[in-house]
Amino acid sequence: MPQRLSSASDDFEPRFRDLLAGKREASLDVEDAVRAILADVRRRGDAALIELTARYDALELTPETMRVPADEIEAAYRATAPETLQALELAHERITRHHERQRPQDDRYTDAIGAELGSRWTAVESVGLYVPGGAASYPSSVLMNAVPAKVAGVERIAMVVPAMRGALNPLVLAAARIAGVGEIYRIGGAQAVAALAFGTQTIAPVAKIVGPGNAYVASAKRQVFGTVGIDMIAGPSEVLVIADGANDPDWIAADLLAQAEHDRAAQSILLTDDAGFADAVERAVERQLARLSRQETARASWEAFGAVIVVGDLLAEAPALADRIAAEHLEIATDDPEALFALIRNAGAAFLGRHTPEVIGDYVGGSNHVLPTARSARFSSGLSVLDFVKRTSILKLTTEALRALGPAAIELARVEGLDAHGRSVSVRLNLAGDAG
Amino acid sequence: MPQRLSSASDDFEPRFRDLLAGKREASLDVEDAVRAILADVRRRGDAALIELTARYDALELTPETMRVPADEIEAAYRATAPETLQALELAHERITRHHERQRPQDDRYTDAIGAELGSRWTAVESVGLYVPGGAASYPSSVLMNAVPAKVAGVERIAMVVPAMRGALNPLVLAAARIAGVGEIYRIGGAQAVAALAFGTQTIAPVAKIVGPGNAYVASAKRQVFGTVGIDMIAGPSEVLVIADGANDPDWIAADLLAQAEHDRAAQSILLTDDAGFADAVERAVERQLARLSRQETARASWEAFGAVIVVGDLLAEAPALADRIAAEHLEIATDDPEALFALIRNAGAAFLGRHTPEVIGDYVGGSNHVLPTARSARFSSGLSVLDFVKRTSILKLTTEALRALGPAAIELARVEGLDAHGRSVSVRLNLAGDAG
Repeated sequence: MPQRLSSASDDFEPRFRDLLAGKREASLDVEDAVRAILADVRRRGDAALIELTARYDALELTPETMRVPADEIEAAYRATAPETLQALELAHERITRHHERQRPQDDRYTDAIGAELGSRWTAVESVGLYVPGGAASYPSSVLMNAVPAKVAGVERIAMVVPAMRGALNPLVLAAARIAGVGEIYRIGGAQAVAALAFGTQTIAPVAKIVGPGNAYVASAKRQVFGTVGIDMIAGPSEVLVIADGANDPDWIAADLLAQAEHDRAAQSILLTDDAGFADAVERAVERQLARLSRQETARASWEAFGAVIVVGDLLAEAPALADRIAAEHLEIATDDPEALFALIRNAGAAFLGRHTPEVIGDYVGGSNHVLPTARSARFSSGLSVLDFVKRTSILKLTTEALRALGPAAIELARVEGLDAHGRSVSVRLNLAGDAG
Repeated sequence: MPQRLSSASDDFEPRFRDLLAGKREASLDVEDAVRAILADVRRRGDAALIELTARYDALELTPETMRVPADEIEAAYRATAPETLQALELAHERITRHHERQRPQDDRYTDAIGAELGSRWTAVESVGLYVPGGAASYPSSVLMNAVPAKVAGVERIAMVVPAMRGALNPLVLAAARIAGVGEIYRIGGAQAVAALAFGTQTIAPVAKIVGPGNAYVASAKRQVFGTVGIDMIAGPSEVLVIADGANDPDWIAADLLAQAEHDRAAQSILLTDDAGFADAVERAVERQLARLSRQETARASWEAFGAVIVVGDLLAEAPALADRIAAEHLEIATDDPEALFALIRNAGAAFLGRHTPEVIGDYVGGSNHVLPTARSARFSSGLSVLDFVKRTSILKLTTEALRALGPAAIELARVEGLDAHGRSVSVRLNLAGDAG
């Protein structure tokens, strides 16, 4: 049974704090092992990559067979069932259309003293996309990571995906084909991150690495950060469902289980103002669990990390609690979800109304499913086009603008004890008419 | 003497690669020491903070004296010379006006199938601002870090600044007063980062920590990342000046030295198409060095990391080299700086024309001086309002929109083996008329 909290009980605050503080993942200490792998690939390139792939993925590669050939990608695409292709293509089209609205605008203006200022956005030149192998090798994740990069104008996307004993999920290749990603290597783990960050004889280095992975991949991304950019480090999935008693308990139970089936460390929380409804949802969860193929995972998550929070009044109490939870996914299933949503600031993605299950956002809604976990929605956002562009600020002065601003800059340089700073301005003020 | 590279010589490419690969900072191994400090402050709160401040800053604090009282801030402001206050206030006003243009716009729209999508931006609730002590305790940095947070709408900014033997730079307090930052603690180092991240009895935790610091502060920020957000890890300052032979060598020499005086590990690079001009700049650097109060630092930087690159044709050769250097600061001192700038994509900030010394951007230009260093302009941007807001994506479906999108979501859930995902949609499609 998930734990039940009631905001009316005396021990609510300490129990809610414990819920927030609860660690859902054992933090594997893989840092030293990863450090050695990174150093090895950095020093020996392909040779190290090939050895490590043989050791960890039971796959013998050569520099020639590392890259998945175009005809293998094409064959995977052609072998995909038409209804699956249609679904992937609908997802691709909707994700593309939504992300096209995220392109930031350049700005350039001249202010009152004649100084020209601006911001110019350009795409990151090259991006590495990590795709996990095995059961978590999801075609939807390929689309969610590749499309924003494509929309941003990234010229080169290099995808890596581990192929245990040579096996690749053909749907991952089909999704890559749909997203326009043609440079794919059958490597994974920390060694793949190293190859993308430092480059090898066969793989050119990239400027930024994105995509989910296991503890080794996460540690490798942390360690190469600085050499390259990285996206967020994704934790286990989570949902907060705010629901009143007018919902069908079966619908809400299904939503809670859709998170729970991802991972034993996933977290599903129901927040409601109706204790009887909460009971009905818990019973519905039990009924549905019996029929799930991933029953074992979903039950482990629900029993260890699931929670039901009952409050007296949703509008009065839910927003503050939701902000403290700062959920990756926030579902609001009430008659007026906008009223509640307007009072909540911390959430990766919001799903409003009784007919908006979070799962639509996982696949075909159009918004991104790479979202901040573990309360990081307090300070970060889901993956977007902004993650694949960077801004250069621009300043351009006339001699008059320099004369207007120069004395203040000289004064600040003086009080900060930076002579050469002051001189870089004063030398131009004295001589502004003579050169240039 | 700085090294001289010529694009016409046979060894140019390997020498340019060495220039890019050169490590300018010894990486101190402070990770374990910092880990212990973080754990101590997390466990013991104020008591640990007070002990560590006594040990590292030779300052005896109590919970009551940790925070700088309002009258001390006010007194520092009142004691500031009028010309300094005027310069700080001009800087504050210009930085505010420029950053106000960076506020992202919310987006909300209904697509062809009746699905409502959107992006909503909200401010990070609370931010910790680290300000270094000692010689690098710059009032300009207080403005550059605090103003974007204020413009973003951050409700609480908690500033920390180490006070060795109790001494605080009054200009830092004056700048905080001008920026509207009133919550200031006289603590620093990894222990201050820990206090901001985890909170103590006296200091409430924040959601994000920004600001520069030494190796301990940088390591602490890396280690608390995840618990809180952090900004970039700033490395030593750097400038790339692209200049033709028509410049006054004294002006360009002053610009190179304005970076070099920051830090022995700073880097100043001149890229020119005129070898004679390069010689003249080098002579001017020598002349100016003799007069600098920070001569020793500037000379060490210039001789160890300075470089002069001579090419045959600026327009043809400079852009590719500039993109590989990906400088924090890029100055273009030519007749048509826009033509060159249009061909360069990697730079933190660009200063265009002969009358735009980078130093104006350090203080009063209006753009931010917190910029990506160490080639990270390939994948990241300077500090902006975007660093203090986060985006929640929004999805809201009608029953019709759910019917239109549901089958594709169910199909993708099926091929990914996620039953509960499929059920969360199908349960609503079968019953869509019955509830809600």
